Amino acid sequence: MTYLQQITSPTLLIDEKICRDNIARMATKAKNNSMKLVPHFKTGQSKAIGKWAKDYNVPEITVSSIKMAEYFCGDGWETIHIAFPFNPLEIKKLNELSQNQKISVQLVNSEVAKMLANQLRSPVGFFIEIDAGYGRTGVAVSDFGKIEEILRISQTSDYLQFRGFYIHAGHSYYAKDVAAIHEQNIAALNMLKNKYRTEFPDLVTRTGDTPTCSMMDDFGGIDEMGPGNFVFYDLTQAGIGSCTKADIAVALAVPVVDINPEKKTILIHGGGVHLAKDVLFEPNGEKNFGEVVFLSDEGWEIPKSRSFVKSISQEHGIIQASEELLQKAQVGGLLGILPVHSCMTADCMKAYLSLDGQWIDHTEGFSF
Amino acid sequence: MTYLQQITSPTLLIDEKICRDNIARMATKAKNNSMKLVPHFKTGQSKAIGKWAKDYNVPEITVSSIKMAEYFCGDGWETIHIAFPFNPLEIKKLNELSQNQKISVQLVNSEVAKMLANQLRSPVGFFIEIDAGYGRTGVAVSDFGKIEEILRISQTSDYLQFRGFYIHAGHSYYAKDVAAIHEQNIAALNMLKNKYRTEFPDLVTRTGDTPTCSMMDDFGGIDEMGPGNFVFYDLTQAGIGSCTKADIAVALAVPVVDINPEKKTILIHGGGVHLAKDVLFEPNGEKNFGEVVFLSDEGWEIPKSRSFVKSISQEHGIIQASEELLQKAQVGGLLGILPVHSCMTADCMKAYLSLDGQWIDHTEGFSF
Repeated sequence: MTYLQQITSPTLLIDEKICRDNIARMATKAKNNSMKLVPHFKTGQSKAIGKWAKDYNVPEITVSSIKMAEYFCGDGWETIHIAFPFNPLEIKKLNELSQNQKISVQLVNSEVAKMLANQLRSPVGFFIEIDAGYGRTGVAVSDFGKIEEILRISQTSDYLQFRGFYIHAGHSYYAKDVAAIHEQNIAALNMLKNKYRTEFPDLVTRTGDTPTCSMMDDFGGIDEMGPGNFVFYDLTQAGIGSCTKADIAVALAVPVVDINPEKKTILIHGGGVHLAKDVLFEPNGEKNFGEVVFLSDEGWEIPKSRSFVKSISQEHGIIQASEELLQKAQVGGLLGILPVHSCMTADCMKAYLSLDGQWIDHTEGFSF
Repeated sequence: MTYLQQITSPTLLIDEKICRDNIARMATKAKNNSMKLVPHFKTGQSKAIGKWAKDYNVPEITVSSIKMAEYFCGDGWETIHIAFPFNPLEIKKLNELSQNQKISVQLVNSEVAKMLANQLRSPVGFFIEIDAGYGRTGVAVSDFGKIEEILRISQTSDYLQFRGFYIHAGHSYYAKDVAAIHEQNIAALNMLKNKYRTEFPDLVTRTGDTPTCSMMDDFGGIDEMGPGNFVFYDLTQAGIGSCTKADIAVALAVPVVDINPEKKTILIHGGGVHLAKDVLFEPNGEKNFGEVVFLSDEGWEIPKSRSFVKSISQEHGIIQASEELLQKAQVGGLLGILPVHSCMTADCMKAYLSLDGQWIDHTEGFSF
């Protein structure tokens, strides 16, 4: 039975070859810059994909919640980094996990540093997250008072161990000038490293976002990179220029349930609960929730003429169809949709089907 | 242990009393109009909430996928209606389920009608979905050719049984004039009923959306109503005028991980994977992904001054905080967030915690 014959409802497909190529390319770039690649597994959330990453000498991963850390515990990672300002309500769980798994967390204030210093029962590393302009989270790059307060608190603890500085320049997703953001990251991290390396000779610097890691070649001495989305990429990243559409490693297979040749629309079973509701905008202002690819036993193929999902509700999607698509599509058939935001689509779907018909695990879905 | 003491990570709270009041109010309205209430359980997706609905004499429910139908099979419902243009790849599953559970489906074209007529092995009812202006799906209200083609095909089958006409006026979510949409629905359904009742004396008419069902009092002879969102309501419905904020029956409890008094922002663990990414817009154009409520052992309370989630990413949310909130919030504490779109938030969270600390099931999460 081919993978296509297994599908009766919306199903997230993964092309292992594309995914491995994405990991290999980033691993090579990291190596060329003498950097450690610590991929952010909030995208794949999968032990199977973790195995693929290990083939490219990835010893350590990043996750975005303690639940995800727990999922990967005991799966052979040197360290699991939780790249989210630590939630002190989860100290008990952290103490459980860190007994058997090296874990690092992220700190942005002295309140949580104090709680950890008082309550940790095993060694846990921490990065101080730096806000170099994104404005979502992190200590302002020039707020040495707060940085040193956190460092001072950590020194009162036998268990809370400083590892370095972390920047996630999430605004590179929206900015026109990724290179400028990259320069800003390098300058911030190098300044902090120079300022604190005498006292902390082992401190490392890490930068996180997929656009800068994909598009830049020189990392100016930053020690580690932690991109996430690059394992799959998506239409957002293709729009930014981080990848081409051919690099997108996942596609949502969706059943066609109705075709309207007059309106040139196709109704699919595939909506917000499958794709999530991330959206791109066409030049004419129309919404784009994903782009159509044709499915075959070998995988998917990008059509000559573009068709996209122009609206979605909970379970419904409506495709604005090209003539090529209208000729090929049939009620009862399947189409593929390249996602706008693959991390969110994967989190909605909670499992992957490989092109050889194997189910691939996800944190909250299938587990093997 | 109170429900609050159980929470360490984002958790969807349900207030049973508010939820029951919402169901009771709609059941009364249906009764006053001699209508059958067939609630759409794509919102709650919960057997426990199904039990509450049965207390208000609800014998039948609607779902939006065969997966959801399967979940509710055998739970004592007279009929389960799948309110989605039927996906012919799922005929095998439909044949399995319909052996032991009365099921009805929705048809919008003759292709799927033919496949069902040929392949059904037990009786299955069907509604013809009518597009009275929404434009998402359905047969155009004046396309008698297509309606009669579907009816003719169904008459070739011993199993495919016509039940009536269904309208979901989803555009009432976006329109200023809900009353006008309601009048259009009534006119369309009554016209179709009059046209086809001689041949099909048992045919019924059903209308589906929460705004018209909540805001209108006279249903002009429509036989059944199938709203979904009303069991929980949300900020979108409060904005439309379907409910007040006090009628919203679910709130996402989120840990506070950082507070920035200068920017008046609060960072929470609560992002797109919890709330979904549905968004409302403030008068000044700012985005609103949910509004803050204060949590106590008794439930939640709407603050005097409004604070809302102004941005979200996968796991992060940033609240633009009022002075009142800045004074009350603390790192390591919890806040509640009223969702913009409760159906999507529930689908993300896949379980509910009641105010007496009990877990409530959801289709894809906890099951009892």
